[in-house]
Amino acid sequence: MKISRIRHQGRVFAARVEGDTVHPVVAEDDRFMADAVRDLIADGTALDVLSADVPGVPLADVEVLSPLAAPQKIVCIGLNYADHIRETGLETPKVPLAFVKTAHCLTGPTADVRVPRGASEQLDWEAELAVVIGRTARDVSAERAMDHVFGYTVANDVSARDAQFSDGQWFRGKNFDDFCPLGPYLVSADEIPDPQALAVSAAVNGTTVQDSSTKEMIFGVAETVAYLSRYMTLHPGDVIATGTPHGVGMGRTPQLWLRDGDVVEVEVENVGRLRNTVRLTG
Amino acid sequence: MKISRIRHQGRVFAARVEGDTVHPVVAEDDRFMADAVRDLIADGTALDVLSADVPGVPLADVEVLSPLAAPQKIVCIGLNYADHIRETGLETPKVPLAFVKTAHCLTGPTADVRVPRGASEQLDWEAELAVVIGRTARDVSAERAMDHVFGYTVANDVSARDAQFSDGQWFRGKNFDDFCPLGPYLVSADEIPDPQALAVSAAVNGTTVQDSSTKEMIFGVAETVAYLSRYMTLHPGDVIATGTPHGVGMGRTPQLWLRDGDVVEVEVENVGRLRNTVRLTG
Repeated sequence: MKISRIRHQGRVFAARVEGDTVHPVVAEDDRFMADAVRDLIADGTALDVLSADVPGVPLADVEVLSPLAAPQKIVCIGLNYADHIRETGLETPKVPLAFVKTAHCLTGPTADVRVPRGASEQLDWEAELAVVIGRTARDVSAERAMDHVFGYTVANDVSARDAQFSDGQWFRGKNFDDFCPLGPYLVSADEIPDPQALAVSAAVNGTTVQDSSTKEMIFGVAETVAYLSRYMTLHPGDVIATGTPHGVGMGRTPQLWLRDGDVVEVEVENVGRLRNTVRLTG
Repeated sequence: MKISRIRHQGRVFAARVEGDTVHPVVAEDDRFMADAVRDLIADGTALDVLSADVPGVPLADVEVLSPLAAPQKIVCIGLNYADHIRETGLETPKVPLAFVKTAHCLTGPTADVRVPRGASEQLDWEAELAVVIGRTARDVSAERAMDHVFGYTVANDVSARDAQFSDGQWFRGKNFDDFCPLGPYLVSADEIPDPQALAVSAAVNGTTVQDSSTKEMIFGVAETVAYLSRYMTLHPGDVIATGTPHGVGMGRTPQLWLRDGDVVEVEVENVGRLRNTVRLTG
């Protein structure tokens, strides 16, 4: 199943997507939900509830939002593709290198990425497969880790390299508002039999800049979920952005930074595609 | 006003604390709240609603929880006291150095800090004044920043130094489950006329290990709120842990790491005191 959060006639719904049609099933305001998709995942009813036979509306007539609005955490794995590590000049981590974005960064799959003018001169993109946790995971084995995965979506781990590296800690440079376009939908795990065999790509203004596969990951999805769960409980709706391959702007010669009006497309095979425009503000 | 989240007769309430009496005003389950205190702050009604004249119960008869359960983010400021920077051997930041904890770390003011046996050999404490945001802050000036502060509480920024420094990124080493004892209550800003003149201290098994004042901060509360808000929206209920002074275990000679059964007390003058016991598990 493909699941979106949409705005339709002024209200936000969790919805099932079928081709060019969207079926808005649950309105957040009717159920006092903070985040309809997260809350349905958390109570274990998402697939059942969203299967309901409700009228469809054309996808083109609704606003597609980030499929999650309030995950407790968006854990990101750094330096998880060998070809990306080479371009950064950094060392290959011995364990998954985790940092985090929080929900204030989330924005929709076609929304503008609005950046205050002057806040960064080194805006970069990172195409990533994002994993969404379905069942609470606490010290789970790699063998059982996939039982805790609800599904997948696509993330652009937008990064202000100047802030990232002048701080040393990556929190600020990874956590400007709008730095986590996510979507366009959440694809349930049954539709992705092998998350380690998906093409991952990015394009800037129509030119391909990243073109790799999740098979190049150093730490795969199961191993990453298991590892993180040793230290921290992963909750339903939590997102794990699994790292980016070769081809970010920082690693190019000459380096390429995003500018006002640039269009960034990020795609993961069988999962979906983001298309966001950078807008300098203020 | 002093505001707690408490468990009383099996239900969770937002409550007003007066001396040794607690007045449970709003039950989370009655109002479909995810986090009663956060949600009352967010809708601007916390002080009015919690002023209600309801029967009191002895504080000793209730379980006092972390005053916030689901802040969107707990932004932490590293290296924000000159005497602490000297003990780490690191450089003084030119801007507030931000990292983050997420809500899975939160635990109550007297709860055990449960750490999986073997997950860290270098468990450390950090006494901190924590600021709680009251009104959404986006690109606010330092002059107006305090208008966005709801109040204050006490945090222990528990840290696994081995994980923190082997990763380089501080997320994992600062984000084990239970690594953010918070409380015992949230003190509204009107009760703290000057947040830059509060004693901050910690004791381990009754021996004082940290003893400083918030006047020693490099970046004060107003400046920190203003700075962060340039890059990321601060939402009602968000927490900013403002850094720790000299005297953490890492900086002592010889170094002192927390062990099973150790009791850590953290106190901020006029704000409150935490008392947590370390428990190795598994």
